Amino acid sequence: MAPESRARLERQVAFLVEADKLKSILRRTPLVDASRQENSAEHSWHLLLTAMVLREHAAGAAKECDLLRALQLMVVHDLVEIDAGDTFAYDPAAQATKMAREAAAADRIFSLLPPDQASEFRALWEEFEAQRSVEARFAHAVDRIQPLLQNAHSGGGSWSTHDVTRDQVLRRMAPIETDLPALWPLVLEIIDAFSAAGVIRLGE
Amino acid sequence: MAPESRARLERQVAFLVEADKLKSILRRTPLVDASRQENSAEHSWHLLLTAMVLREHAAGAAKECDLLRALQLMVVHDLVEIDAGDTFAYDPAAQATKMAREAAAADRIFSLLPPDQASEFRALWEEFEAQRSVEARFAHAVDRIQPLLQNAHSGGGSWSTHDVTRDQVLRRMAPIETDLPALWPLVLEIIDAFSAAGVIRLGE
Repeated sequence: MAPESRARLERQVAFLVEADKLKSILRRTPLVDASRQENSAEHSWHLLLTAMVLREHAAGAAKECDLLRALQLMVVHDLVEIDAGDTFAYDPAAQATKMAREAAAADRIFSLLPPDQASEFRALWEEFEAQRSVEARFAHAVDRIQPLLQNAHSGGGSWSTHDVTRDQVLRRMAPIETDLPALWPLVLEIIDAFSAAGVIRLGE
Repeated sequence: MAPESRARLERQVAFLVEADKLKSILRRTPLVDASRQENSAEHSWHLLLTAMVLREHAAGAAKECDLLRALQLMVVHDLVEIDAGDTFAYDPAAQATKMAREAAAADRIFSLLPPDQASEFRALWEEFEAQRSVEARFAHAVDRIQPLLQNAHSGGGSWSTHDVTRDQVLRRMAPIETDLPALWPLVLEIIDAFSAAGVIRLGE
């Protein structure tokens, strides 16, 4: 193998070894059996499976979206958390600094790759974050429905442990209403049931 | 939503909730920081990332393979472990019963889905297992290189804890030689280094 090919391969391996750390980034959402918190790597896998199963429910253009692109967005979407951590959806102070922390993380992590792949993978992450392409919008809606189902089937999950209000949850789930609209009645049923049970707090 | 659409959605959700259990199936391979064993869900995510990064090294036909199909194979390839468990690669007795245990698991798990999707997802799993399509062969090679890198970067991983021989590792890694041949010199270097250090035992 030519030295430059070897150097390229070593950068690819270094990136893949670094990516292993995503398995130690904990989210607020518990596993369905409530035995522990979910990590961002297994969450990412679950998004891909969810996208494959629920794609038929996507709105108009997203139903015809490039599924390969959407899956690739989901594979890379949380890698920045290796440095930036998982930012809790319902923590406004942390959300305010999220963009800067994640951009710095993207600078470091993607540049472990050879330059052409660093650009390619960073572009995937930026596309996911920008939420403009149909694939990114679909991926975002999937990134909302997966933790909702996880919370619903673990008895309330991060809603109950973090004192979240109905309005907060409804705002957070809005991408489902626009991009996976066939699921919206189910989402409302779940939110209403957990609100009625006092797990999700009424109010702003 | 019509009752039949609702019933369909409920089967899809039941499957996705069941799939969460893959996060509790432990493999023999540790994380790179050796803090704990890897689970099959996060392993599956890592395969997808590895495939995206290393695809250029695939042999001939696999380089042009349908990456979407390959990623889908990797997403579903370990779901049967929810019932069948992770079968250790170097345990001949467990390997002998693996096919029957996993087929029974596939019967149960994929049939949680609506019938058309049950067939579609089962076909993905069967394609991965049969190792005939270029996508399945590529996915298999990726499923070998990921734990090898993980072991190599965690000081020996499952090689050291499970008394594995050099010949066993070489046989196990053979799909890399045929389907990711550009990586084979690196694989041999790693195996030789861990053999020389006494982590991988010499012998049959």
